[in-house]
Amino acid sequence: MPKTAASIRLYVEAPLEAGAGIAASDAQAHYLLNVMRLGAGAAVLLFNGHDGEWQATVTVPSKRRLHFEVLRQIRGQRPVPDLWLAFAPVKRLEFLVEKASELGVAVLQPVFTQRTDITRVNLARLKANAREAAEQCERLTVPVIHEPVSFAAFITAWPAGRRLYFLDETGGGAPIAGALSGGSAATPAGFLTGPEGGFAQSELDALRQLPFATAVGLGPRVLRAETAALAAVACWQALLGDWTSTATV
Amino acid sequence: MPKTAASIRLYVEAPLEAGAGIAASDAQAHYLLNVMRLGAGAAVLLFNGHDGEWQATVTVPSKRRLHFEVLRQIRGQRPVPDLWLAFAPVKRLEFLVEKASELGVAVLQPVFTQRTDITRVNLARLKANAREAAEQCERLTVPVIHEPVSFAAFITAWPAGRRLYFLDETGGGAPIAGALSGGSAATPAGFLTGPEGGFAQSELDALRQLPFATAVGLGPRVLRAETAALAAVACWQALLGDWTSTATV
Repeated sequence: MPKTAASIRLYVEAPLEAGAGIAASDAQAHYLLNVMRLGAGAAVLLFNGHDGEWQATVTVPSKRRLHFEVLRQIRGQRPVPDLWLAFAPVKRLEFLVEKASELGVAVLQPVFTQRTDITRVNLARLKANAREAAEQCERLTVPVIHEPVSFAAFITAWPAGRRLYFLDETGGGAPIAGALSGGSAATPAGFLTGPEGGFAQSELDALRQLPFATAVGLGPRVLRAETAALAAVACWQALLGDWTSTATV
Repeated sequence: MPKTAASIRLYVEAPLEAGAGIAASDAQAHYLLNVMRLGAGAAVLLFNGHDGEWQATVTVPSKRRLHFEVLRQIRGQRPVPDLWLAFAPVKRLEFLVEKASELGVAVLQPVFTQRTDITRVNLARLKANAREAAEQCERLTVPVIHEPVSFAAFITAWPAGRRLYFLDETGGGAPIAGALSGGSAATPAGFLTGPEGGFAQSELDALRQLPFATAVGLGPRVLRAETAALAAVACWQALLGDWTSTATV
């Protein structure tokens, strides 16, 4: 929808309750005052990941400082489904994080595999991408983004009760709709996608031996890593997640 | 996969048959000689959308001119499923075209709706994006990209025998997995996605009256237009398209 003053949604960390006064961050103050050209009295929506969505009014107690006066709750808290997305960092990482946030991933986990070209991840920046995407797509939570881990640490730490679908680009995986059939939103699950160069053979061998892991495939074309991740998440949401019932925001 | 000389795939327009000699385009010559630093004798793969995939060798008859000597077919022709994607042009149009190509859309149709901000589409550039994506994802076809049309012309010209799933961001659409159930890859189908500002009410009214159109929804979050388009295509491929059987490229 087009952005109007009434539909500006911002994430805050403070508790939300009627009558609360919350200081805007410097970035929020800059965005509202200089980008959106709003001032005292402007209406915004606030969420913090656990208190639902609230209507608030901008107040400007002093030059360049900006507060939110919290008025009333307009939506109760609502979680996204408990879906995790683990991924080898790729060039278009910010894009992947943005789209995963929109599509309703709860937890993002960067994993350094053998053939991962990217050696450093700017976690603060990715968290900002996730927050902005959550603000825009009307989520009431921001996805959790964990510190990157090695592939070995990742498979060791993965909870045995959570199904791990890894995207096997060598063509050996089960078609995704079939692999997900029989699951439900209540079955804890996550996806793992490899880097541009694919998983190493030793990594595929290790994954195939894990009792909680299933190899899945996404058809005959070779998808870029970020495309595969988003396609897999979309399929899960459509078949098992919160796209299975008519939308009620 | 990492790009090696052997895995460079290029689209050509000429017929492919053993012994054929085909002139490379200037862009292909530049890419092979200057970007990939290849020369005479290098191995490449060629496809043209109807003769399958062929191994070929680079020859350099004169400075800056480059030919392909076609050796032998390594894959027979194979179409993508007959899925169309119509979309109001959005800011990230090149991204949308690239991802739709990877995901296996056969036909792309830009549609100017009332709230479409973009007024011109660079068709030549989009065709280049589609071609590059097809080269990289191992498709044997390049998606057809039609000239943009108005919304009115679009719904008038849509073939009545083809199901049109339009993404209804107002929340009234059927969950996508349910909407697609009962269909098959043999049922001609297409999606229509709106612009950032959504469809106008009159457009939604017109769509709802078409006997061949179905409103679909993608859950409770507000997806960006390009995210919605790609998610819908991924769901269709997984449920009805060529992701339903184990991959055999």
